[in-house]
Amino acid sequence: MKALDELVGLLTRLPGIGKKSALRVAYYLLKADESFSASLADRVRDLKGSIRFCSICGSYTEEDPCPVCSSPARERGLLCVVEQPQDVVTIEASREFRGLYHVLGGLISPLDGVGPEDLRIDELVARCGTGEVAEVVVATNPTVEGDTTALYLRRLLEPSGVPVTRLATGIPVGGDLEYADRLTLARSFRGRTKL
Amino acid sequence: MKALDELVGLLTRLPGIGKKSALRVAYYLLKADESFSASLADRVRDLKGSIRFCSICGSYTEEDPCPVCSSPARERGLLCVVEQPQDVVTIEASREFRGLYHVLGGLISPLDGVGPEDLRIDELVARCGTGEVAEVVVATNPTVEGDTTALYLRRLLEPSGVPVTRLATGIPVGGDLEYADRLTLARSFRGRTKL
Repeated sequence: MKALDELVGLLTRLPGIGKKSALRVAYYLLKADESFSASLADRVRDLKGSIRFCSICGSYTEEDPCPVCSSPARERGLLCVVEQPQDVVTIEASREFRGLYHVLGGLISPLDGVGPEDLRIDELVARCGTGEVAEVVVATNPTVEGDTTALYLRRLLEPSGVPVTRLATGIPVGGDLEYADRLTLARSFRGRTKL
Repeated sequence: MKALDELVGLLTRLPGIGKKSALRVAYYLLKADESFSASLADRVRDLKGSIRFCSICGSYTEEDPCPVCSSPARERGLLCVVEQPQDVVTIEASREFRGLYHVLGGLISPLDGVGPEDLRIDELVARCGTGEVAEVVVATNPTVEGDTTALYLRRLLEPSGVPVTRLATGIPVGGDLEYADRLTLARSFRGRTKL
């Protein structure tokens, strides 16, 4: 069936959806209300139209500037640097951070041909030059690319005098020493804190 | 973000898609080409319009009767009874069956209020009355409802003289006795075959 195969082909291009899941979704749609398919189709089509990038922090938003950047309740001296817009959503969901964000739009990765000039780094330097920023918290993932980018930013922002910090790496809460990999264990030793 | 939340809300109603997967899909769509979202939306909207039920076997099809029912290459004396249209796709993919199908559209399940009159059973009896059918293979799942339905069909078709068979249950190929549950083991003993 062409209509089914075409839909399954498109669905399998989505992340986390294989052939079997795509078929299940297609069969669900065949059984579901016409109105459900219609609203799902509308939302899929219109998503990109109604969401854009915040001109200040670079995260996804419906109004520009985004609600975080324009909120008077946020600590304007604290700037959290993240790789991609969805990281802002993740950190916001944790309710652990009350400052502002800056989305890089990627990480420095010479192997993938991504250099500093491909990221929103000039914008970051400009924001740090206004004298408003008291601390930059780099929240890139603890991977090779995330670490490289963090080190690059620290060196780049040194002349501005703004202190650059990095999220702690270590054993996750509720985790087990036995299942921690060697690198995580090494980092949690180096980053040990006083009780 | 309303547009994102609405899409995620609809996506989580699909089978096998939780909150996290739905968010990943939404972020993928935000990054993907406008044309990808557009074709996905079209296919989602049009799926139900282009696929209907075959008037003979009851499975999904784009033309009526479906390619299986109208194929001169199939064994017209062999009728495989399945619960739902997607079972036809599963069996066709295995290339193990060359006869025709009959989709019941459900299983007898008194607890869910589904009786024989809610299924395509009258149509099955009519097909078996034409003298064309030499064997009915019941391929419902080996569950309480599947077994009940199979037994009901056997009793119902007895007067017609058409022999009713059932797919074998047992340990799956490549499976391990150690991990077989007691009921499966019991059934594979009862259904043991001569070497």
